[in-house]
Amino acid sequence: MTPAFDAPTVIRTKRDGGVLSDDAIDWVIDGYTHGRVHDAQMSALLMAIFLRGMTGAEISRWTSAMIASGARFDFGDLRRDGKPLRLVDKHSTGGVGDKITIPLVPVVMACGGAVPQAAGRGLGHTGGTLDKLESIAGFTAELSGDRIRGQLQDIGAAIFAAGDLAPADRKIYALRDVTGTTESLPLIASSVMSKKLAEGADALVLDTKVGRGAFLKTLPESYELARTMVALGEAHGVATRALLTDMNVPLGLAIGNAVEVAESIDVLAGGGPEDVVELTLALAREMLDAAGIDGRDPADTLADGSAMDCFRALVAAQGGDLSQPLPEGAHSETVVAPRGGTMGDIDAMAVGLAVWRLGAGRSAPGAQVQFGAGLRMHRRPGDPVAAGDTLFTLYTDTPERFGPALAELDGGWSVGDDAPEIHPLIIDRIES
Amino acid sequence: MTPAFDAPTVIRTKRDGGVLSDDAIDWVIDGYTHGRVHDAQMSALLMAIFLRGMTGAEISRWTSAMIASGARFDFGDLRRDGKPLRLVDKHSTGGVGDKITIPLVPVVMACGGAVPQAAGRGLGHTGGTLDKLESIAGFTAELSGDRIRGQLQDIGAAIFAAGDLAPADRKIYALRDVTGTTESLPLIASSVMSKKLAEGADALVLDTKVGRGAFLKTLPESYELARTMVALGEAHGVATRALLTDMNVPLGLAIGNAVEVAESIDVLAGGGPEDVVELTLALAREMLDAAGIDGRDPADTLADGSAMDCFRALVAAQGGDLSQPLPEGAHSETVVAPRGGTMGDIDAMAVGLAVWRLGAGRSAPGAQVQFGAGLRMHRRPGDPVAAGDTLFTLYTDTPERFGPALAELDGGWSVGDDAPEIHPLIIDRIES
Repeated sequence: MTPAFDAPTVIRTKRDGGVLSDDAIDWVIDGYTHGRVHDAQMSALLMAIFLRGMTGAEISRWTSAMIASGARFDFGDLRRDGKPLRLVDKHSTGGVGDKITIPLVPVVMACGGAVPQAAGRGLGHTGGTLDKLESIAGFTAELSGDRIRGQLQDIGAAIFAAGDLAPADRKIYALRDVTGTTESLPLIASSVMSKKLAEGADALVLDTKVGRGAFLKTLPESYELARTMVALGEAHGVATRALLTDMNVPLGLAIGNAVEVAESIDVLAGGGPEDVVELTLALAREMLDAAGIDGRDPADTLADGSAMDCFRALVAAQGGDLSQPLPEGAHSETVVAPRGGTMGDIDAMAVGLAVWRLGAGRSAPGAQVQFGAGLRMHRRPGDPVAAGDTLFTLYTDTPERFGPALAELDGGWSVGDDAPEIHPLIIDRIES
Repeated sequence: MTPAFDAPTVIRTKRDGGVLSDDAIDWVIDGYTHGRVHDAQMSALLMAIFLRGMTGAEISRWTSAMIASGARFDFGDLRRDGKPLRLVDKHSTGGVGDKITIPLVPVVMACGGAVPQAAGRGLGHTGGTLDKLESIAGFTAELSGDRIRGQLQDIGAAIFAAGDLAPADRKIYALRDVTGTTESLPLIASSVMSKKLAEGADALVLDTKVGRGAFLKTLPESYELARTMVALGEAHGVATRALLTDMNVPLGLAIGNAVEVAESIDVLAGGGPEDVVELTLALAREMLDAAGIDGRDPADTLADGSAMDCFRALVAAQGGDLSQPLPEGAHSETVVAPRGGTMGDIDAMAVGLAVWRLGAGRSAPGAQVQFGAGLRMHRRPGDPVAAGDTLFTLYTDTPERFGPALAELDGGWSVGDDAPEIHPLIIDRIES
């Protein structure tokens, strides 16, 4: 590590529209991880990056430096039936009702893939996979590296909190959250990919969400993010591809924590909402293809119960007890149709904020979530509706939350005479 | 103070090119002063301001909020011979060899003005007036508000450390220094003016330096800074005007701490370098005019010794003992002419950095300076030179500093056959 840098000089370079050298990036990430570069200096640099951007080479080096700040898993020595494990993972940029990891990982396991999946907790209007899974009694995501390795060997998957992976990213992410520097494409791409590339997978599929319930609202920025992340993956030796998928309407009919696990179990049992099944299978096919696994059709694993068996094995390995009932909010409230007609558009952001108000999400890192809080939709856009039909059921342990939740929902749906525009779920596919 | 703000929202507004409301500015400055807005949040906001700019109204409110963070002096009740004191001050944006405050304040005192002058210590290549004056044995600039008031009443001037004035500015200035956000016009203007407008003067003259030895290198940005500061002063009810003056070549022949006091005393004795006399008198005339004082010609106060008497009274009031010899570096070194001809251009930045290397300046806030360190120029650009003539004498207490100082000076001067271009000292005058 060369000592020939100082933080103000590095900041000024980016501030003035320059390109940071590899050495400068290594120095500033290492310095921030170890406290030699201060929060105030990093946040000024982050704002300069936000407003000036980064080149592809800068993003790649920034990502590498964040990976190098912590452990990087290597499961390349693991064997099954004498052959190396095919390690493959997926990441979603986050959306409302996005429980896809829960049915998807077992499907890929059942098809012969091994999935080392670092997952997150929710903040704001989108939920976190770990919050959902932790609604299963006993389930833990705090796994040691040895335990992750053992699960991959024994059952073919582990879903775990990122923990020691890319600690620089964890520190920078927390800083971005309070300094208005979250919505930067280079910073989003490097944050996602630093954790994912440290997981030790050979292949990675990205579910890049676009629409009013996603972080990125427009197609051009979503394409750019997807292409940036695919290029980052390939530059780091991981076969990477992305799907662009719609996030204008919530995924599935259940949004919250335990309610999303229940819906995932429906899918694993061969039922469940069509859109959740469609996206699960599309992502599974991409993951298997990226990992070079051919053999079973993922749909068969839902039909024959083999994905459900994998799910049970995964939950059991992580201490979860599916014989216990899933939590359900102590109080519920319904929204009924004021008239008959056709269910109109449903705004994913309005639903996401309502569920967050019900207590399913957090307003600050580290806050507790209500596992039983959530919302069930009884109609999808385009479904017929009779006056008085129940359209939404809301759940919470704290009934004073119904008012704010209903206020968020208000205006986010309608019943009318005309069929609403239905957005296709899978928009495009990006490969390097 | 409305609580309807949070720091990330304020930061995002500016980040996205928006205009901060008066309430948002008041909230963020007050919050930062009292620790509710963190360093990392303020530095992100400062970088956003750096890159997005501020409107005139935003700069004015930002300045007001910084003034409101501390004490604002009010000397409006002071009387001399039954009439209110005419309180007038000047501020220089900083340059190499800029000792003008030292002869200027006594000249204005001698002409009947009263000068409440907050001054600073040096950081980097430009010196600070307080470092220079503190080379006088016993001199102190740490004056209480009562003592400043007493001096203004009794002798008509006080030169003091800014202390309680605009504490928000002090905190923001220190943050800018380490986060690459110093060279922002709105931030420079509001920083200068928040301290100056809190001093309680009725009139203010700004010496805006431009050229390679100044913070601003080009005329357009210097004009913009001068106009911004004049508008800020007028908006706050202080009669304000600015001179734009050249800072390509050092001011005078002495650069350092005690050597600049000695040169100032030469000027007060009716001698001294022409450029120092010219700028002292030009600024004195502006100050007297802005304060509505007519009567004596400032030049007379240098000729008849009345300015020198005022200087002695001022130094004595602040504990200084002029009967003690001024410090001089224990070691000296000379640079001689390698050939005969005409002295070429002399680069103020090279000289400033050389003097800083000799120990006259600081590399970190709070560091100790050498009062005896400095440099004397024996030729001005255009002067005839014979081979072997001494061109510069360098002084320091720590002779290992000569090497780095001579390296800074190298390339910053020349002797040739042709007369160099001579920059006019006073470039323009700005009034609202």
